[in-house]
Amino acid sequence: MAPPPTPPVVAPLVKLVVRVLTFICLLIGLIILTTNTASIFINFAEFKIRFQDVKAYRYMLATIVIGIAYTLMQTALTVYEATRGNRIGGQGFLLFDFYGDKFISLLLATGTGAGFGVTVDLKDQYGAITSGYDKFFDKGYAVSSMLLIAVLFSAVSSIFSSLSLPKRA
Amino acid sequence: MAPPPTPPVVAPLVKLVVRVLTFICLLIGLIILTTNTASIFINFAEFKIRFQDVKAYRYMLATIVIGIAYTLMQTALTVYEATRGNRIGGQGFLLFDFYGDKFISLLLATGTGAGFGVTVDLKDQYGAITSGYDKFFDKGYAVSSMLLIAVLFSAVSSIFSSLSLPKRA
Repeated sequence: MAPPPTPPVVAPLVKLVVRVLTFICLLIGLIILTTNTASIFINFAEFKIRFQDVKAYRYMLATIVIGIAYTLMQTALTVYEATRGNRIGGQGFLLFDFYGDKFISLLLATGTGAGFGVTVDLKDQYGAITSGYDKFFDKGYAVSSMLLIAVLFSAVSSIFSSLSLPKRA
Repeated sequence: MAPPPTPPVVAPLVKLVVRVLTFICLLIGLIILTTNTASIFINFAEFKIRFQDVKAYRYMLATIVIGIAYTLMQTALTVYEATRGNRIGGQGFLLFDFYGDKFISLLLATGTGAGFGVTVDLKDQYGAITSGYDKFFDKGYAVSSMLLIAVLFSAVSSIFSSLSLPKRA
């Protein structure tokens, strides 16, 4: 006789809430980052800075976009699990979640590190010349902070998927 | 009757090798980072830059030092496990390894992100004025790269400690 299916270690609803919170943080970060520009005027000449001008911000954008795509996919799968009571792909997909969550949390961690790292030093550099770009870099801090919170939530997802690994023989 | 002890999922020797490789990468990074200075001369005036002048490099140093302390401790525990055949603290410490490895791999990931992020943009900025600091920032890349390799090894340790989690009831 086949053994009865074991109940999931973490309730699908809890997993879903954590995924949605990750998604919201990444989305807010994406909006602040992609709308971030600043201008200063020196002798009627306009000097404009956009987020694309800072290479580390472009990298941060890449990690956010990858994070959003992955989190959306996992959210859809978790909704399916919560409504149907079982996971698409069954036990085999638990390993996919395990490695995927680990990779995405590490990727987002490099993104937030890059964001904070470049902002603190560039703000110092530009701040010595003009205070006109201060708001631009403050928004850089805001994006990095949203990404840091997303890292924490994705780490929680990673803990959940580790605890949900199939029992070893 | 007590059940016979289960053999470890990952051989202690394999775990030990990964810990030692993590340690070596961090140590090389530490040496390159802390000895990194550069000087340029403009009209007999010396302009010196040291790693402490870049705040993101100071953060990178902090993550490397914490990573070395943790990895040394884990190396000692793994040597004990490899020679005595059982882990200090027994099964209870498996959870400590699990959360510790997850945290350290994420911390090191933010460190390498900060290192690469600040280096790419500061090298651009200074490079527009002088090429005298190019070597300084190239060493910044070298440290960030060693830290990135350390992240990969610590992620492997984190996978091992996840797979070694006690079976769920």
